[in-house]
Amino acid sequence: MSHTVEILSVGTELLLGNIVNSDAQALSRELSGLGLNVLYHSVVGDNPGRLEAAVGLARTRADVIVTTGGLGPTCDDLTKQVLARAFGLELVFHPECAQAIRDYFARMGREMTENNLQQAYLPEGCEILDNAWGTAPGCAFEAGGTHVVMLPGPPSECLPMFRERAMPWLARLGEGVIRSRTLRVFGMGESAVESLLRDRMNELANPTLAPYAKEGEVELRITAKAPTEAEADALIAPVEGEARTLLGELIYGADVSGLEQVVLEGARARGLTLGTAESCTGGLIAKRLTDVPGAAAAFKGGVVSYHCEVKAGVLGVSQALLDERGAVCAEVAEEMAQGARKALGVDLAVSATGVAGPDPDERGNPVGLVYTALAAPDGCWVKKLNLASPGARRDRIRTLSANHALDMARRWLAGLEPTGRSCQRGWTD
Amino acid sequence: MSHTVEILSVGTELLLGNIVNSDAQALSRELSGLGLNVLYHSVVGDNPGRLEAAVGLARTRADVIVTTGGLGPTCDDLTKQVLARAFGLELVFHPECAQAIRDYFARMGREMTENNLQQAYLPEGCEILDNAWGTAPGCAFEAGGTHVVMLPGPPSECLPMFRERAMPWLARLGEGVIRSRTLRVFGMGESAVESLLRDRMNELANPTLAPYAKEGEVELRITAKAPTEAEADALIAPVEGEARTLLGELIYGADVSGLEQVVLEGARARGLTLGTAESCTGGLIAKRLTDVPGAAAAFKGGVVSYHCEVKAGVLGVSQALLDERGAVCAEVAEEMAQGARKALGVDLAVSATGVAGPDPDERGNPVGLVYTALAAPDGCWVKKLNLASPGARRDRIRTLSANHALDMARRWLAGLEPTGRSCQRGWTD
Repeated sequence: MSHTVEILSVGTELLLGNIVNSDAQALSRELSGLGLNVLYHSVVGDNPGRLEAAVGLARTRADVIVTTGGLGPTCDDLTKQVLARAFGLELVFHPECAQAIRDYFARMGREMTENNLQQAYLPEGCEILDNAWGTAPGCAFEAGGTHVVMLPGPPSECLPMFRERAMPWLARLGEGVIRSRTLRVFGMGESAVESLLRDRMNELANPTLAPYAKEGEVELRITAKAPTEAEADALIAPVEGEARTLLGELIYGADVSGLEQVVLEGARARGLTLGTAESCTGGLIAKRLTDVPGAAAAFKGGVVSYHCEVKAGVLGVSQALLDERGAVCAEVAEEMAQGARKALGVDLAVSATGVAGPDPDERGNPVGLVYTALAAPDGCWVKKLNLASPGARRDRIRTLSANHALDMARRWLAGLEPTGRSCQRGWTD
Repeated sequence: MSHTVEILSVGTELLLGNIVNSDAQALSRELSGLGLNVLYHSVVGDNPGRLEAAVGLARTRADVIVTTGGLGPTCDDLTKQVLARAFGLELVFHPECAQAIRDYFARMGREMTENNLQQAYLPEGCEILDNAWGTAPGCAFEAGGTHVVMLPGPPSECLPMFRERAMPWLARLGEGVIRSRTLRVFGMGESAVESLLRDRMNELANPTLAPYAKEGEVELRITAKAPTEAEADALIAPVEGEARTLLGELIYGADVSGLEQVVLEGARARGLTLGTAESCTGGLIAKRLTDVPGAAAAFKGGVVSYHCEVKAGVLGVSQALLDERGAVCAEVAEEMAQGARKALGVDLAVSATGVAGPDPDERGNPVGLVYTALAAPDGCWVKKLNLASPGARRDRIRTLSANHALDMARRWLAGLEPTGRSCQRGWTD
């Protein structure tokens, strides 16, 4: 039997736009993995009437309802009352939950305010989903043909509670599995990838093949439904093969978190160390590398040389060169990377210098002009980029610059030519 | 007349959890600013039947529908067909739109694939919302008592198109304004802030007062509705005064993007320069500072000393100290900050060294043990942090560490004691 899931997120802060609904995203990924089709996301505010209406609507079109938010200690936290009433259940006080909440505050060395105890009231007969990451327990129950899971709002509690507590309860509902494999593509835009693959995409029913634009990259997702994981993987493999034949070295990885993961693993596998020298990216490349647990196996450190004095003083970039050409030129990118190799004592170093915006620099270099460089034991390569676009935002230019710098290292580690060939705009190899 | 808005986001990638619905968040903020109440967010997939049902539902409960997504060049882009059919409108080819799309590709130096031309078909009689940030034009129309705005999915196109093109069209609908002022609080958790303010929150109807948890911080939002901005601001001001009386120096700013903005402005105002020395935060502090346009007015650079060799080699931290005590101690945090002042030639430097996880370090220091330091012209301060918590994720520990380091600089610049007094767990001043 096929199930339909609706994720119902509760919180006025979502409707005011104070926060983004990352719970719905994270839960959707997990539910797909269980073979459960998420067909609706809904958001309503901390309003009992509209929440009740939303629950009634969800019951008409889904048989699994996952709620997020509204389980906390404040007077706006209404989810349990409304859901209990909608399904004709009483809310019951659970002393053991109250004690767990007191213990949590004690462990954290914080004072518990009394409003926290409302979190210990839960629908009668429900399965309690213990919260090891915060205070509000969740719950799961079935009533009137609908399966309901209630989770807390904060993502750091919602996702682990779903994985550790709710998933086992829900797993028995899923039929077969949905498996995905995501190929990561750098160097071609979404409409060009889709144009290349459109005929094949239209032919394929299971697995499906779909490109998704991600900032400066494309994710090519192959999704298969089958009774078991092994059978799903067997459907995926030949389609992956076709994609690799078409896209070749533009595919930098599969099921990886990003270029940084591939670079770190490549360096570690070859026993090489890595460093960064950043101007316009301002620490972003180092931050992305160190986001990856275990980065220290290859990454030793970086220099953020935001002012020319620091480029000269710490990285040893020629002052005469800076005076004559300014910070934004191929030679400075090269000297930054070479200087980082020496100053940090690393085998490989990437650098980025350019104009992130919002304004052109003092020499009139346009927003989006960026040079990235790679210094390696066997040579140094520089890439000139034109990252200007009508919507060119500062953070987008920084992100794309970091992507290009990391891709140069990725290519070198893969034995490819670091500056690459590409059909994307404005690249000069 | 009061209007009700529903934001309807179209895209299977949202339901699969590949991307987060940042459009709904950004648009909600903008619409509130226009005095339009967003009461519903809905997400459906690239499925004509369910999209049609969602539009029908939206028409029963909202008189303004804003759609995002599904306007692009691929075979999954269905929004215009479905909305046009739902409102009984024909889709008409607009040659001027087609030319604009061709011109866009020419300017970018990219080849236009034919599938892009479907973006030039728009509902008859609509107002075309020109896309200066991408290819797909949006549109706005009124039919049967409902106002409809259709926007592209990619956030870098959706938000500017809304602001530049759709807002003037919608502004005439809004009655009065909704104005908010957001006080930023560092050093007290959400439930404690709410407990302190609960009685007042319950009394207040206009403006409203609401705390929102943000990673390691609390946003205290005061929201007023009034006929004009000036009248709304006059309602907000006394409530802000009350909050400041209660929370004092824990409030670090109002309507600011974060601690980094306050630090940069404070340094710039005093003619001081700033640098960073990062270990466990790995470049995050420098990245956050340089996210702020104009950071170069105060921020000169940073060192990411991920390995001990770099702490010693670039920052001049005593090798004997590192050998004896390891990287995670108050003395190393202090020497990193002092070393950064010298190496980068800055007046103020912050540092962070600690165990971000997922594992304890090689000396057995537990995950979450972090030292942050501030070196200033008149002294050096160190703070010891215990950032462990049941859900302690690596990125959360890095974020909180960066917050504390920046708050030390914020406090010093404000003439306050840098290590602060706080009621949050595990802090040793």
